[in-house]
Amino acid sequence: MNLEPSLRYSHTIMSQIIKSGDNVIDATVGKGNDTEFLSKLVKESGKVYGFDLQKDAINITKQRLAKSPLNNTKLFNVGHENIKEYVKDKINGAIFNLGYLPGGNKNIITRPKTTITAIQACLDLLEKNGIIILVLYYGHPGGKTEKNSVIAFVKSLEQKEYSVLEYKFINQVNEPPILIAIQKK
Amino acid sequence: MNLEPSLRYSHTIMSQIIKSGDNVIDATVGKGNDTEFLSKLVKESGKVYGFDLQKDAINITKQRLAKSPLNNTKLFNVGHENIKEYVKDKINGAIFNLGYLPGGNKNIITRPKTTITAIQACLDLLEKNGIIILVLYYGHPGGKTEKNSVIAFVKSLEQKEYSVLEYKFINQVNEPPILIAIQKK
Repeated sequence: MNLEPSLRYSHTIMSQIIKSGDNVIDATVGKGNDTEFLSKLVKESGKVYGFDLQKDAINITKQRLAKSPLNNTKLFNVGHENIKEYVKDKINGAIFNLGYLPGGNKNIITRPKTTITAIQACLDLLEKNGIIILVLYYGHPGGKTEKNSVIAFVKSLEQKEYSVLEYKFINQVNEPPILIAIQKK
Repeated sequence: MNLEPSLRYSHTIMSQIIKSGDNVIDATVGKGNDTEFLSKLVKESGKVYGFDLQKDAINITKQRLAKSPLNNTKLFNVGHENIKEYVKDKINGAIFNLGYLPGGNKNIITRPKTTITAIQACLDLLEKNGIIILVLYYGHPGGKTEKNSVIAFVKSLEQKEYSVLEYKFINQVNEPPILIAIQKK
């Protein structure tokens, strides 16, 4: 077997930690890959809250999920900086794909300020042993600034309260995504 | 489940990649934890070559392995910079614990020059899909210098030939070990 790329490893970690009945957030719905993945992990007794500013992302993902036998997902066509207004439950996990949508329009990107507001909202809602995954794409204009802001923010998290793991390939010229995993102690 | 500390994750990766019958190197035998672990992974049809400059390390590990039903380990009381003189087989994996022996004497440390010679020797012997794991302890005098040298070296490895993964916890003040995994493509 090969060392897992960051995106695949994000699913490995989620599979190890998220269980049937959990509440989770997909903070960047995009094409719904993670939304669908999380929906299957938490099963019918769990809940998935999905956020995306782009109307198309919400529509594509709604169509995709319509084929699923599970009915556990709520999608919101608002930016993830509004999470606190829409999610009142405690959560066991959240996923962010930051930067641009791979294969999508590189002009539509996440921004440090709203990203960090959203991560903080998820931290405030997070149960003990819960996990927040960030997959950071940064090979676009503004990408390095966002990456640096986000990494400075997560590095500052109190080690008594959180473990913050960084997982990245360091000999590649094409800036493959970096995985950050934050687990609440 | 919790995010795995670097040392534990080093065993997870090894378990996923190393099989019965493989040839592997423990480049820093110490108390024989990894030697014994590798011996069990490669089973009777495999081989483990262990290196340590310290006579005590070799003796402790010989006693430890004497209790094992497996007879697949050769221990050498020489520094790992001599690997090429002792190992003529191709290998599927190698483990290095760099820095000092946790719980041991912090004055007895590995050094960048011999470390990099040894890593290069393992790279030269490595089969396709084989893996070299480095666990870097650096909370000791000279530790940061070694860490920086080793990371600069592995970052420079050609991405067409190797994947180089860095796995580390980034919000901890006590400088927990960093895991580097190098897989040959």
